[in-house]
Amino acid sequence: MKIYLAGPDVFLPDAVEIGKRKAEICARYGLSGIYPLDNTIDRSASDVSLRIFRGNQAMMDEADAIIANLTPFRGPGADPGTVYELGYMAGRGKRCLGYSNDPGYYADRVRRFTSVSPGDGRLVDADGLTVEDFGLNDNLMMMHALDLHGYPLVMPQQRPADIWHDLTAFEACVRIAAGRSS
Amino acid sequence: MKIYLAGPDVFLPDAVEIGKRKAEICARYGLSGIYPLDNTIDRSASDVSLRIFRGNQAMMDEADAIIANLTPFRGPGADPGTVYELGYMAGRGKRCLGYSNDPGYYADRVRRFTSVSPGDGRLVDADGLTVEDFGLNDNLMMMHALDLHGYPLVMPQQRPADIWHDLTAFEACVRIAAGRSS
Repeated sequence: MKIYLAGPDVFLPDAVEIGKRKAEICARYGLSGIYPLDNTIDRSASDVSLRIFRGNQAMMDEADAIIANLTPFRGPGADPGTVYELGYMAGRGKRCLGYSNDPGYYADRVRRFTSVSPGDGRLVDADGLTVEDFGLNDNLMMMHALDLHGYPLVMPQQRPADIWHDLTAFEACVRIAAGRSS
Repeated sequence: MKIYLAGPDVFLPDAVEIGKRKAEICARYGLSGIYPLDNTIDRSASDVSLRIFRGNQAMMDEADAIIANLTPFRGPGADPGTVYELGYMAGRGKRCLGYSNDPGYYADRVRRFTSVSPGDGRLVDADGLTVEDFGLNDNLMMMHALDLHGYPLVMPQQRPADIWHDLTAFEACVRIAAGRSS
């Protein structure tokens, strides 16, 4: 089974190394992990971003499942690039798994970024926009996509010290994808 | 042609009203706009978020195209819930259109939220994570999804005074979906 390894991991200083670690964990469970940076892209080309897109899409089309790193990125929610890929895989009927290394509720996390106050029967942020308050870790579209197209979001009991390098929750997803109970 | 009207518009105080305005614009071009809040959801149900998800997914499955409002939401990038829907529609082979009322480059916008500095051949944010710097409005996955699964991102020349209620760029998307040149 081929698993597309999606996440803002590609933005880390050691992006290539973490991809290798993830692929090694997959291999240990008999699965094949494929990672965006496995593609060889000519970084000097004028259309480099388009080449990255085409490479990622080809990998997703080839994969049977996705494990998306939904740890909040540069704001209160998951990385939109990763979320696009989760949606694409759900749309293609592939199996969707995901994890977040920041457990807890979305509404509580938003409070770290903006003021949140009770409005007219709803929570609102500083701009008056509703803050989702369903007791979920992130926006309901991603959370329930996992529930209905794969497996519920995997989270650690506690936020690990290094949210970008701790792969415990990732490994739990791999174990589930491999159909192993432990 | 049925068009799914995706966006953080559903979080506005006048969310229902803006959905009506968008549907009216679609009707003027001979198209049928369908909007998440058209669904009647029992808000007192214990599984209300799951019901919203199912309703939105059914609407997307019914629609021929999506017009996604990718105006940055609660951070430097687009609303992840909307981006999930864009990915889902691309995966289903539907036509993808989108707009953002905040023109300009992603890397410049990130500077409003965190420090951005040149790293080892790349721009990095305060956490050392790469800031995409391809001269695009947002993450390359969404931007090129529009290019290859529909029509390039529509943006106004200048950021409108009211980014949440100005529907000029939205109407331009509708015009394109309807196949009209003006």
